Amino acid sequence: MNNQNISFSIEERETLYNIIFNRRDVRAEFTSQPIEDEILARLLVAAHHAPSVGFMQPWNFLLIDEKETQKKVHKLFDEANKEASEMFEGQRKNLYQNLKLEGLLKAPLHVCITCDRERAGPVVLGRTHMSNMDLYSTVCAVQNFWLAARAENIGVGWVSIFHEDELKQLLGIPETLHIIAYLTVGHVSSFNKKPDLERKGWRKRLNLKELIKHNNWQESTNDNLTSLIDKELKKQNPDERN
Amino acid sequence: MNNQNISFSIEERETLYNIIFNRRDVRAEFTSQPIEDEILARLLVAAHHAPSVGFMQPWNFLLIDEKETQKKVHKLFDEANKEASEMFEGQRKNLYQNLKLEGLLKAPLHVCITCDRERAGPVVLGRTHMSNMDLYSTVCAVQNFWLAARAENIGVGWVSIFHEDELKQLLGIPETLHIIAYLTVGHVSSFNKKPDLERKGWRKRLNLKELIKHNNWQESTNDNLTSLIDKELKKQNPDERN
Repeated sequence: MNNQNISFSIEERETLYNIIFNRRDVRAEFTSQPIEDEILARLLVAAHHAPSVGFMQPWNFLLIDEKETQKKVHKLFDEANKEASEMFEGQRKNLYQNLKLEGLLKAPLHVCITCDRERAGPVVLGRTHMSNMDLYSTVCAVQNFWLAARAENIGVGWVSIFHEDELKQLLGIPETLHIIAYLTVGHVSSFNKKPDLERKGWRKRLNLKELIKHNNWQESTNDNLTSLIDKELKKQNPDERN
Repeated sequence: MNNQNISFSIEERETLYNIIFNRRDVRAEFTSQPIEDEILARLLVAAHHAPSVGFMQPWNFLLIDEKETQKKVHKLFDEANKEASEMFEGQRKNLYQNLKLEGLLKAPLHVCITCDRERAGPVVLGRTHMSNMDLYSTVCAVQNFWLAARAENIGVGWVSIFHEDELKQLLGIPETLHIIAYLTVGHVSSFNKKPDLERKGWRKRLNLKELIKHNNWQESTNDNLTSLIDKELKKQNPDERN
């Protein structure tokens, strides 16, 4: 049996949308409760079922639950983040410095997801012309992991303010591999309704309609689609013009 | 109200896993039935709610339903794919040439998802040290779109055998933007139970347990986690050792 016609219902579809809309990049809300191995196993299996170019499955998952190592990772973040804050000016710099950008010391588990570009040899089906495809496959695994975590009521935060080489050296990751995502993972006290950066006024959610083009870059899309998009957005934010 | 404690049930969690495990890269199974605007609106809203570095939302969505343009895109694929097949040798080349790698002429809709790296100015929160983060954010939008489509019982295929510059020129995409994914989208006759490349013997699904490291790259993970992973994998493939 190659085919199966699993058809999802309206209720199941709405469940996925609820998970997507309620997924957050968690920083401040982690609790110290350890992640159960049962849950972690499911998250990893979900990540492993991401699409990958040429079915190369280029990912590895490094689980870090040793407090000493987590503290060293936090130190690398701290140093890099000082450099980062110097790149902003004036009010933006103040705001930047007041943002909570990681939960490295609170989250009980870190998961570093890497990409091994050599996994399937030098010539990979589907990567012959767009060379980043293997990196993108690994990101699909990250997003599967993240959504699965939300469905398990587990928080995930993606921390990217690191010098990659320092992090690889600290964790013993081979030089030929690429770090795609460094995730903090844990139970949470609550999920915020909106992204932190939106709540804190860092940036606004963009108007989706303006991001859609039709057949050619010069053409906007049709009025029917844009009014339907409005309707969908209003369902989520009934109190807002969005 | 910043917080909300939406807690997903076991049934809802299992729905997400079913969607993840039954998502396929569709090539041969598209039907010509047009995608309803109601569905497309929901898919785009789901994509727009992906995580993004510094909340920059760097994506655009170019919808292509003009047959003439779709045919021109297919021609670009065809030329690139001839080059690609020359990169394989012997039996692999034969197998490659017999694989169906796109559904560009059958799928009623193409969606090209791009990344605008300049959207939030030169210094982006979270991109200061890992410069690819904006590309990865866009991939998260792709994966949201793909999973949402599966939940709507809509097929998606990601076609990557193109010279990016040729595709940009054909579609009028500004030079400064990056094409992350070129998707074919449509109703399908059925979803295959396994990935095409697995069914056709191109590559096997890897053993997840061997891809997991613990605290340091030299250390495998613990037996409890690996046996739980086995249990999860067996649920999906009760007839296989996996």
